[in-house]
Amino acid sequence: MPQLTTPLTDALGLDVPIVQAPIGSATCPALAASVANAGALGMLAVTWRDETVTREAITETKQQTEGVFGVNIVADSDAKSVPTETHVEVCLDEGIDIISFSFGDAAPYIEQIHSRGGVVLQSVGSAAEAKDAVDAGVDIIVAQGWEAGGHVQSEVATLPLVPRVVDAVPDTPVIAAGGIADGRGIAAVLTLGATGAWLGTRFLLTEEAYVHRLYRRRVIEAEETDTVYSTLFDEGWPDVPHRVIENGTVAEWKAAEQPSTERPGEGDVVAETGDGNPVRRYEDSLAVPEMSGDVEALPLYAGQSVGLTQELQPADELVAGLAEEALAALERAD
Amino acid sequence: MPQLTTPLTDALGLDVPIVQAPIGSATCPALAASVANAGALGMLAVTWRDETVTREAITETKQQTEGVFGVNIVADSDAKSVPTETHVEVCLDEGIDIISFSFGDAAPYIEQIHSRGGVVLQSVGSAAEAKDAVDAGVDIIVAQGWEAGGHVQSEVATLPLVPRVVDAVPDTPVIAAGGIADGRGIAAVLTLGATGAWLGTRFLLTEEAYVHRLYRRRVIEAEETDTVYSTLFDEGWPDVPHRVIENGTVAEWKAAEQPSTERPGEGDVVAETGDGNPVRRYEDSLAVPEMSGDVEALPLYAGQSVGLTQELQPADELVAGLAEEALAALERAD
Repeated sequence: MPQLTTPLTDALGLDVPIVQAPIGSATCPALAASVANAGALGMLAVTWRDETVTREAITETKQQTEGVFGVNIVADSDAKSVPTETHVEVCLDEGIDIISFSFGDAAPYIEQIHSRGGVVLQSVGSAAEAKDAVDAGVDIIVAQGWEAGGHVQSEVATLPLVPRVVDAVPDTPVIAAGGIADGRGIAAVLTLGATGAWLGTRFLLTEEAYVHRLYRRRVIEAEETDTVYSTLFDEGWPDVPHRVIENGTVAEWKAAEQPSTERPGEGDVVAETGDGNPVRRYEDSLAVPEMSGDVEALPLYAGQSVGLTQELQPADELVAGLAEEALAALERAD
Repeated sequence: MPQLTTPLTDALGLDVPIVQAPIGSATCPALAASVANAGALGMLAVTWRDETVTREAITETKQQTEGVFGVNIVADSDAKSVPTETHVEVCLDEGIDIISFSFGDAAPYIEQIHSRGGVVLQSVGSAAEAKDAVDAGVDIIVAQGWEAGGHVQSEVATLPLVPRVVDAVPDTPVIAAGGIADGRGIAAVLTLGATGAWLGTRFLLTEEAYVHRLYRRRVIEAEETDTVYSTLFDEGWPDVPHRVIENGTVAEWKAAEQPSTERPGEGDVVAETGDGNPVRRYEDSLAVPEMSGDVEALPLYAGQSVGLTQELQPADELVAGLAEEALAALERAD
């Protein structure tokens, strides 16, 4: 394994400065554990899981790795039913000591986590937000650029965002997120001053990621120009911009001149969960393997790095390859 | 001067892989010559200049430098009155051998330029456009990301765009544009596989750039979150997305819920040129020094890298500093 040590790898005990983003329902114990086993930071997403399921996911991950993994919690209460404080408590009880927050303020939970020896990450979309977070006691900043997939926190692209954030919080490790899918992107954000790279879309194409085969197929085929940034898939988590691969739902909405109400097929059931529950058009539901119906009509979350995301791999193999590519890119440029 | 040689510096005879973007009326002989004198590529913008003024600008630049400079021509006929072929002929006659095209296809002019020993650059916004340009005979590709200032060719950010373009045209030098304002950004795009960095916004803050002091002041003060991407300033060059610093005109239009017609103050004269000609709200007119009136209401073109653009410097000193910073960033990351 090549060496790429940074203040982030030192702080978290990683071998490589790579983070598997908490890609909603697509992350799972097998994915987080495989990433952790390769020396990177694996992540579970607990926001849409109740306490019992959260506990089970953490336990199952621990059984598969001695490596480092954490959890992400969306702080925005519109996104979920479980209070953030409860989620934090459950994770701490289960021995998790790396907790990242997105879409909201980590401040109310920092003492709760620090008092149990934990580390707090917060995603931000600007230099000002980074400074506020660090002033409140956040330990590590995630700077997420506009080209990121899924729900997006910034209107600033990663390349001009990261150096601004690094300058704003010079004593805090900054992880760059958005637009990174290969070793060149990792090398690039390290030269910008980031101490690590947070990749989401790229991890969709791992054998472990919990995604429907039609979603995976669209990730493989999509070009860098094929994603759309909007607030279209708003049922379940309203008014938050997100990036998806253009699909039938997006195309019909565009053809109808992008109405904000009475959209084409509003409320139609387009798919079904494995339990037989209906999934409606415009729902914030990631396409998981057991779904049936018109799965392609669901939000196919992906960032603009989807153009660089083509090869299905085991996650640990992916991490090792990314680290090698990053080192090679740095050596080539220097 | 530190050494940063790439296939681009080899191809064009530069000392450093830095290009001063053709920033419309803000570029001038003094700027292009100062950049060229520092070993980077200086550029003149001739699109809005008639043949006589174009000849004068080239002659004046030559008198001030033995270095390398080229011209940019917007190929879109909506943007101008002089036919592109005429512009190309005038430049070739004046001994220019580096001609870059943006917003349109360079293909019709490639033979004309190659037969006179010239080099053709074309700006693109996707991997597919890059491939088409190289297939048509373009020598060097400029990949311009969405976070760029002024008129913008892509909806893809620079970080995910550049590696895609590099992979699409592996035998052609690729210059990265958009989001770069310091040595860290230059280092980052070199690690992505670019052979050079094209900076526009950063060169607005040079002593030579031909910009009104109020425009310069706004560039100094703007944060990375203060730019707006729209088609608002459409009079003179309609329907092409561009990025500006938010100003009074943008704020009033946003407050009016972004109408596409009957916008606030539509057609009002807001400023005056040095010759006493009226400048209307929503006109595609860069704020140059001799203008008077409400100059702040004009399009204050800038990219998201404006947050990193704070220090007014002579252009040659800026170039030397950028090269040193880029080398330092590569050394730090490796």
